[in-house]
Amino acid sequence: MNADTETSSQTDPHSVGMVETQFAELFAPPNPLALRGGTTLGPISVAYQTYGELSPEKDNAIFLCHALTGDMHAAGQMEQRRKSGWWDGFIGPGKTLDTNRYFVICANVLGGCQGTTGPASIKPETGKPYGIDFPFVTVEDIVNVHSELVRHLGIERLLGVMGGSLGGMQVLQWAANHPDQLSSAIVLASAARLSAQGIAFNAVGRRAIYADPNFKQGQFYNEGEGPRFGLALARMIAHITYLSEDSIELKFGRRLQDSDSLSHELHAETEFQIESYLHYQGERFVERFDANSYLYLTKAMDYFELAPNPGDLAKSISKTDARFLVVSYDTDWLFTTAQSKEIVSALLSQQKHVSYSELSSPYGHDSFLIELDQLGALVKPFLEQTLASTRG
Amino acid sequence: MNADTETSSQTDPHSVGMVETQFAELFAPPNPLALRGGTTLGPISVAYQTYGELSPEKDNAIFLCHALTGDMHAAGQMEQRRKSGWWDGFIGPGKTLDTNRYFVICANVLGGCQGTTGPASIKPETGKPYGIDFPFVTVEDIVNVHSELVRHLGIERLLGVMGGSLGGMQVLQWAANHPDQLSSAIVLASAARLSAQGIAFNAVGRRAIYADPNFKQGQFYNEGEGPRFGLALARMIAHITYLSEDSIELKFGRRLQDSDSLSHELHAETEFQIESYLHYQGERFVERFDANSYLYLTKAMDYFELAPNPGDLAKSISKTDARFLVVSYDTDWLFTTAQSKEIVSALLSQQKHVSYSELSSPYGHDSFLIELDQLGALVKPFLEQTLASTRG
Repeated sequence: MNADTETSSQTDPHSVGMVETQFAELFAPPNPLALRGGTTLGPISVAYQTYGELSPEKDNAIFLCHALTGDMHAAGQMEQRRKSGWWDGFIGPGKTLDTNRYFVICANVLGGCQGTTGPASIKPETGKPYGIDFPFVTVEDIVNVHSELVRHLGIERLLGVMGGSLGGMQVLQWAANHPDQLSSAIVLASAARLSAQGIAFNAVGRRAIYADPNFKQGQFYNEGEGPRFGLALARMIAHITYLSEDSIELKFGRRLQDSDSLSHELHAETEFQIESYLHYQGERFVERFDANSYLYLTKAMDYFELAPNPGDLAKSISKTDARFLVVSYDTDWLFTTAQSKEIVSALLSQQKHVSYSELSSPYGHDSFLIELDQLGALVKPFLEQTLASTRG
Repeated sequence: MNADTETSSQTDPHSVGMVETQFAELFAPPNPLALRGGTTLGPISVAYQTYGELSPEKDNAIFLCHALTGDMHAAGQMEQRRKSGWWDGFIGPGKTLDTNRYFVICANVLGGCQGTTGPASIKPETGKPYGIDFPFVTVEDIVNVHSELVRHLGIERLLGVMGGSLGGMQVLQWAANHPDQLSSAIVLASAARLSAQGIAFNAVGRRAIYADPNFKQGQFYNEGEGPRFGLALARMIAHITYLSEDSIELKFGRRLQDSDSLSHELHAETEFQIESYLHYQGERFVERFDANSYLYLTKAMDYFELAPNPGDLAKSISKTDARFLVVSYDTDWLFTTAQSKEIVSALLSQQKHVSYSELSSPYGHDSFLIELDQLGALVKPFLEQTLASTRG
C-alpha cells in the first residue's frame, strides 16, 4: 500500500518540459499529535513532494491540499506509477503553478494510504497495522499536520494554500486555524460544511465496505484480498456523484459496451457503457486505495463544518488577512454554487479580499481536475497579484 | 413474500370515508405470455385491486401503473398491512380519483413480489422458486399483461392510464403498444427512456445485491434470511436519488440522531439523522421486497427506451388518439423536466392533445407521491374533460 512513498534518490532525473521525476520526502514531527477527537497519535510520518525551488526569501511557496482519493503526487512522473500526477496539467515550467517561479508542496493527508501515517501503518504497541484502531481524524487534524510540515520546511508564511473538494475544506480550515500562515487561499468546488446529501452518499459507501465479508473488522491486511468488492462499490457510488448528468449522458448515454443489441440477460452487469465504466473505475481504485482510509477520510468529510451558522462562519475566518479566491462549477451538484456563495458572503461580511467565480463546465464536481485552462486564467493572475502584494 | 395477496372475503368491511378494506383479486391469463426477450412464460397469475364501481357503459375505468417498489395496494386498508395504500390520499370518495365516479384498477407488475408471477413464484418444472431462472422482463411485457387484464375485466377502452416514474414508462408504452385501449394517458415524473445516470444508480444497487454472500445466485428463499444487507443498501442508494438536495437539507441537515455532540467514533453508522433515516428505510424495505424482483425490475427500467431518437419517439406514439397529461417536478433530478419536455415535444409534433406542467415542489422525484393537492388540481379536470369527451 505504501510502496509509492519510499524515499530514494535517482542519478538521472529526466526533465522534458515537465516536472522531473519525483520521490516522496518524509517528515517526522518531533512531538505526538494532539487530535481533535481528544486522543494523541505518534510517532507519525508525513510523506510529501515538492516542485520548483523555494526562493531565498521563502515567499513563493504554495501548498496544495489534495482531495479525498488524491495524494502528494500532484505533478510529473513518479516511480512505480504509470500516470502523471493528478494536477500535472496545472503544475510545471510555464504552467499555472509555474515551477520556475513557485515552490509547490503537496503532502499526503493523515489517515490516508500513500505514506503519511494512516490505518495501514504499523501500530507501535502491537507491531500490527492499526486498522480501525487508528484514531478518529478530522480535517483540522489533517491541516495541523500540514501546518507543522510547512514550519519544518522553514516557511513562515505561504504564498497560498489551495485545493478542491476535501482539499478546499482544508484550505478553509487552514485559514481559520492558522490565519497568519497564508497570504492567499484558493477554494475550489468546496463548502464550509458537507451537505446532508454528501453525508448520505458517504454513508452508503462506507456501508458497502462494512458489508464486505472480507472487511474483517478492518484487520484485512494479511488476510487475502481485503474488502475489494465493498471498496469498489463505494467508489462506483461516489463516482456517479462526481459527474454531471449532462457529462454522463454525453459521454455514455445509453450506448452498449460490447454489442449492438440488448441481451435480455439479467446478469449482464456491464452491458451499458456507463456500467462498464463504473466497474472499471471501481476495479482500478481498489488497486491504489485502502478501504480503512476510505472509511476514515469520508468520515472526516462528514464531520467538516467550519461553523454551524453564517454568523459563526464569518467569525471563524475573521482573523486571517489572506486574499481569497473561491470557484464553483455550474454543473457540480455535490458541492454546489450555493455552498461556495455562502463562503463568499461570510468573507465579504468580514471585509475580506475575495474573488469569486462560478465557472461553466459540463464535468460536474470533477471540473476542478479537468478544466484547467479556465481555472488557470483565474489562478495565475490571482497568485501574481498576491506575490506582488507580499513583496510590496 | 406473497402473504398480502391471497384472495379472501370479509363479512364486515369497514368503510369510514375512505376506500374500504381491500383484498387482492387474481387473474390467470389463459395463454402463455410471449415475452419481449423471445421466451414464453406461463401459466402466470396477476394480482390486482379495484376501487369504485365500473359503470354500466364501462367507460369510467382508470388503470394505475405503480412505480418500482409500489404494488396493487394503492388505496385504503389491506389485511396484514399497517399502512394505507401508496396513493391513498388521491383515491377515494370525493378525492381526485373519486371512487363514486371512477373505477380504479391497480395490478402488481410482472416480475414483482406482491402476487403477480415473479422470481419468488414457483417454477412448475422444478417445484422451486424461479429465482434468477425467471425470464427477463421488460416494461412492454408488464404492460401487455395489464392490457390483457383490462380486456378480461370486459373493458374495451380505459378512460385513463396513469402512473409516475416506472409507472409513467408503462403509460407511455401502453399508448404505443395498445393505442386504442385508452382515452387518456397521465405521465408523472417519468421519461421516454432511462437516463445514463439512472442506469448508473440502478447498476450500483444491483451490485450491492449480487455482492451479498446471502444472495446465493438468487436461490435464497429457503436459505436463511437472504441478501437483506445488499437489498437494504440498494434501497438506501436509490432513496437518496428520490429526494431533492433541498428537501434532504431541510428535513435532516447536519442534525445528529441521538446526541448533542459528535462522537468522533469511526463506527458510528447512524450518527447523523440522514444516516439513521437511510438505514431505517433500508431495513423497512427488506421486510416487504424481494431482492430478485429488485434486480429484474431495475433492469426493466434500464432497458426502457420507447424509441432511440426524437423522430422515432414521435412515431411510436403516433397511433393513439388519447389525450395526454405530462407532469414533471422542478426538484426531481432523477427524472428531469427536460425529459418530460422531450415527451411533450414528440406528442406535439404528432398534433396530439397534450397538457404539460412543471410543478414546483421541494420533494424531488418523490413529489408525485406526496404533493397530491397540486397534482389533483391538474388531474381532476383533465379526467372530467376526458370523460365528457368520451361521453360526447
